[in-house]
Amino acid sequence: MGGVIGLDVGGANTKAVWRDGDDSRVVTRPYEVWRDRDGLIAVLREVVEALPAHERVALTMTAELSDAFRTKREGVAFVLDTAEAALPAPLSVLTTAGELVGIAEARARPLDVAAANWVAAALAVGAVHPDALMLDVGSTTADVIPIAGGRVAARGRDDLSRLLAGELVYTGALRTNLAAIAARVPVGGDWCPVASELFAISADVHLVLGHLPPEGYSCPTPDGRATDVEHARERIARLVCADAAQLGAEAIERIAAHLHDEQVRQIATAARRVSDTPIVPLGGGAFLAREAAARLGRPVLEMPWREAERDAAPAAALARLAPC
Amino acid sequence: MGGVIGLDVGGANTKAVWRDGDDSRVVTRPYEVWRDRDGLIAVLREVVEALPAHERVALTMTAELSDAFRTKREGVAFVLDTAEAALPAPLSVLTTAGELVGIAEARARPLDVAAANWVAAALAVGAVHPDALMLDVGSTTADVIPIAGGRVAARGRDDLSRLLAGELVYTGALRTNLAAIAARVPVGGDWCPVASELFAISADVHLVLGHLPPEGYSCPTPDGRATDVEHARERIARLVCADAAQLGAEAIERIAAHLHDEQVRQIATAARRVSDTPIVPLGGGAFLAREAAARLGRPVLEMPWREAERDAAPAAALARLAPC
Repeated sequence: MGGVIGLDVGGANTKAVWRDGDDSRVVTRPYEVWRDRDGLIAVLREVVEALPAHERVALTMTAELSDAFRTKREGVAFVLDTAEAALPAPLSVLTTAGELVGIAEARARPLDVAAANWVAAALAVGAVHPDALMLDVGSTTADVIPIAGGRVAARGRDDLSRLLAGELVYTGALRTNLAAIAARVPVGGDWCPVASELFAISADVHLVLGHLPPEGYSCPTPDGRATDVEHARERIARLVCADAAQLGAEAIERIAAHLHDEQVRQIATAARRVSDTPIVPLGGGAFLAREAAARLGRPVLEMPWREAERDAAPAAALARLAPC
Repeated sequence: MGGVIGLDVGGANTKAVWRDGDDSRVVTRPYEVWRDRDGLIAVLREVVEALPAHERVALTMTAELSDAFRTKREGVAFVLDTAEAALPAPLSVLTTAGELVGIAEARARPLDVAAANWVAAALAVGAVHPDALMLDVGSTTADVIPIAGGRVAARGRDDLSRLLAGELVYTGALRTNLAAIAARVPVGGDWCPVASELFAISADVHLVLGHLPPEGYSCPTPDGRATDVEHARERIARLVCADAAQLGAEAIERIAAHLHDEQVRQIATAARRVSDTPIVPLGGGAFLAREAAARLGRPVLEMPWREAERDAAPAAALARLAPC
C-alpha cells in the first residue's frame, strides 16, 4: 500500500496532496469554515476519498482563525476532532517548529499547531533552495518566508508576530476585499475614495485583467452572481458606487490595474523588508510573487514540482515530509 | 386624519418618520436588502403599520446600490415596485434636485431618485441654518453637505461624484469593516498590518470605547455572536489575527482608539475640504461629527429636532417636506 496524504485545512480552502514515491495527486476544495463549520467533516471525507489508498495523513491548518471559533484553542480542537472523526488513517500534525506530532500531543499544544502550514512549505523550499525567500501567495494571504542555510529563518511564528514581521501579508489572488487593498482608486483623472462594503474581491480584478480564467475564480462571488468578466466589472464599478455602464470597461480596467499594482507593491515591500535573496514563487497567486520579484529585480528560483503541487504548497510539502 | 410618513429605504436600514403638525413618531428597522431582497415588502409593511394613520408617504432610498441588484436602475425599480405593493397610501419620491415627484415619474427617471436621501436632510438643515455644513453620520456612511444662503450647495449629485467631492465619506458608526478604516493599527509599540477579512466592524470599536450601548449595536455582528464588550474585544483582536487573551483588554482598547481617531480624521478631512462653516451634526454617528467639529475648531449648530428624528434625519426631513 504506502502513500501519505498532506492535508491543509484553511479557513476558505481545504487542500490535500497524496504522494507515493514519485506519484502524486492533488485535490483542492473551496470550503469556507465560518459559513458552516459542521460541514467540514464531510469535506475532509470527500477530499480524502478522492485520493488513492494511504497509510497516514499529515495535517496542518489555518482554519482555527475563522470566526466560527471564539479562540484559536477552540478552533484547533475542532479541526483535530473533525479530522480524527473523518479520517480512518493515523494522523500526525505539524507544529510551527516543524515537527510532526501525534494527535494527543497536538491537542495538548494547540497554539503550536495553529497556523503552521507555511512551515511545511518553507521546509520543503529550504531542502531545495538553501538561501531564498519563499513567496507563497494564496487566495487570501501571502507567506513571505526567509530561508537561510537551508533553515527556516522566519522571525515570527504565530500569525500576529508574522504580521508584525512582514512575513504574513494579508493580500491574496482571490478573496481580498478590494476596499481593504487601497483607500482610493483612479477615476477620470482623479482619485476616488472607495466604498467600504464587500462589493468586489481580488478575483474580480484578476479576472478582468486576464490573470485568472473564470474557472480559476474558485471562491463565492460577493454578489452571488457569475464569475465572468461582465459581472466582475459590475462588482468593481460598485467599489466607487457606480454602475458598470456609468464608468465603461476601460475605466474599470484602470481601477483593476491600480489594485493589482497595489497588491504587487505590498508583497514586494514585505519581501524587501524580510530578505534580499532570490525568490521562490508558490501558490495560486504565484503570478503576483513573480511580479514582486521583477519589481525588486530579484532572480526567481522554481520548486521542481508540478504546478498543482506548487498551488497547494503546504499540503504538497507535508506529503513529502511525513514518513511513509 | 392627516399625517405624512417620510420613508428612507437604505441598503442596511429602513427608517420611517410619521408627522402630523408637531406630533411625530420614528421607527428604525435594520434590514439588509442584499441578504434577502424579497423580504423588503414585509419590512415596509411592518414599519408603516407601526405608525399612526397617514395620508401619504414620501419615499427616498439608497438601497439601489446594494449588490442585490445588477444596476441602480434595477434597484430603483425594485424599491419603487415594492413600496407601491406594500403601501396603500399615495407615494411621492424625492429626486436629487429636491423635488417630490409621483411614482410614474420616478420610474421614468430612476437615476434622479437613486441615493437622494441626503437631499431631504440638507433641505431641512438649510431651512434652519442657512450657512452651515451638514454632517450626517449614519451606520455606514457620512454625508458632508454644504449649505450656502439656505440652499444645498453640494458639488456632487450622484454617489460617484459625491465620493469624488468628499461629500460622501464611506465610514460610519456601526457597519464599517475595520480592515477598510486603517491598513495598520498599533500593537505593542509597533504598527501591525491588519487582516483583510470581515472580522470586526466600527460598532465593535464604539462598543468597546463606550460610545455605544450594546442595544445600539443594531446590525448583525460579523461572527454572529453577542453585542457585548467581551465579544467585541474578541472580534477586534481577530483584526490582527490574535485571540483577545493574547492581546489583553488594554491593547485592544488602543487598537479601537486608533480606529476611532482615524474615522474622525477622515470625516474632518472631508469637512475641511467641503466648507469652512459651522457644523450641524446628525445621524446615529453624530458623536463622530461633533468630534470632527471639535478637531476643526468649528462651532456646532443643532437641529431643533428630537434625538430620534436627528438619527433618522432624511426620513424626518421628508416627513416635514411632503405636503399633507
